[in-house]
Amino acid sequence: VRTLKLTLAYDGTAFAGWQMQAGQRTVQGVLEEALASFATDRIVAHAAGRTDAGVHAAGQVVSFALEHAISCDALLRALNVRLPPDVRVLQAEDAAPGFHARFHARRKTYHYCINNAAVALPQTRHFAWHVRQALDVHAMSAAAAIIIGEHDFAAFQATGGDVITSRREIFTSEFCGDPPHLTYQVTGNGFLRHMVRNLVGTLVDIGRGRYEVDHMRHVLQSRDRSRASATAPPHGLTLFSVDY
Amino acid sequence: VRTLKLTLAYDGTAFAGWQMQAGQRTVQGVLEEALASFATDRIVAHAAGRTDAGVHAAGQVVSFALEHAISCDALLRALNVRLPPDVRVLQAEDAAPGFHARFHARRKTYHYCINNAAVALPQTRHFAWHVRQALDVHAMSAAAAIIIGEHDFAAFQATGGDVITSRREIFTSEFCGDPPHLTYQVTGNGFLRHMVRNLVGTLVDIGRGRYEVDHMRHVLQSRDRSRASATAPPHGLTLFSVDY
Repeated sequence: VRTLKLTLAYDGTAFAGWQMQAGQRTVQGVLEEALASFATDRIVAHAAGRTDAGVHAAGQVVSFALEHAISCDALLRALNVRLPPDVRVLQAEDAAPGFHARFHARRKTYHYCINNAAVALPQTRHFAWHVRQALDVHAMSAAAAIIIGEHDFAAFQATGGDVITSRREIFTSEFCGDPPHLTYQVTGNGFLRHMVRNLVGTLVDIGRGRYEVDHMRHVLQSRDRSRASATAPPHGLTLFSVDY
Repeated sequence: VRTLKLTLAYDGTAFAGWQMQAGQRTVQGVLEEALASFATDRIVAHAAGRTDAGVHAAGQVVSFALEHAISCDALLRALNVRLPPDVRVLQAEDAAPGFHARFHARRKTYHYCINNAAVALPQTRHFAWHVRQALDVHAMSAAAAIIIGEHDFAAFQATGGDVITSRREIFTSEFCGDPPHLTYQVTGNGFLRHMVRNLVGTLVDIGRGRYEVDHMRHVLQSRDRSRASATAPPHGLTLFSVDY
């Protein structure tokens, strides 16, 4: 049995997220369907990040077991012929036996795009959150830097998360881009459910002037979900890359 | 009677181009429908560039006559409520009497996006031409510079054009962006039908190594459409801005 590692990009607009759900179009569903001709039993694909409905990927990583002698290049081409155009396999390679895309991930990077213009640009409407009010990018950048390091991110975790610990380490957390296009880039050793979107919700409220920069520290230290702002919408978020 | 000037952005993917056609969804059609409540007769909207099916706009300019006292701000908001999300009015202003978006345009800028990666990125599939083969950007840039100045662009004109002269002046013609994302940016005092897409078709063939840089000069001087390469696909093209 070989262990395969795929790198995927997808436009999450027309998907009900990564994870297979009966009667829903999911990335896992279309990928496993494309893989079906390479095995008699179901091939179960594990993703580094189980992205929610509407969330995109530029470098999602997927692992699965394969009992087939096809070359990685031929597999990549065959999958891209079978997959719909909103999902592409960017890379296919053999991984060490037992490699697991989620359990072995060391760092993940997410990008969150904001279109901060008076009127939403149609071209980015599925890929950026349109925030009409002028944002103070200096304040947002200062607040973003506060979360760098190891912290308990319970305040930014979706209710109903089932993880053992809510401590995570953040390596970079910053805003890039030229107004009106802003991108929040965050790299960490792991992320809780909705964590990036909850961080962005609070950072944007700071950018709008609803709170001071130090509010970020207070919310973080409170470990209280009710102190953070509303979750930013899914369509601004992209799983950018995963390191092993 | 007032003369109104609108600046529009649209995602051309789901439109059969700018120009009204029976039974087709066009930008002119949805805009005139949104304008219908401001007049008893049809309001005819004139666009600076009559973009083809699949072509986008970031700064299309439109003019029309209006007999209504609504403020420009209220008109902008009312139109954006009535328009579908793939068209937005970015700006609405009163223009000098007799202003015509097409006849009075002095300069237009088009951007043409190319995704030069081995596998097409799903996120840009409606906004960039996917060219798989490695492109020599230096050669393409050198060839692009050849067309700067006033020339007869008959070789790059779609057959069936009905213009009096095919002479146009090009002010800038260059490639920008970080690979694998390339953007060809061209500004001129006017463009013939399919001219930008025909220029890009030939420039990409030079980038692929099919022709030398000097081929661009030979095609231009030939004034012979059959010497230029195939027309690049519409979905890479955006009417970026119009100057008056």
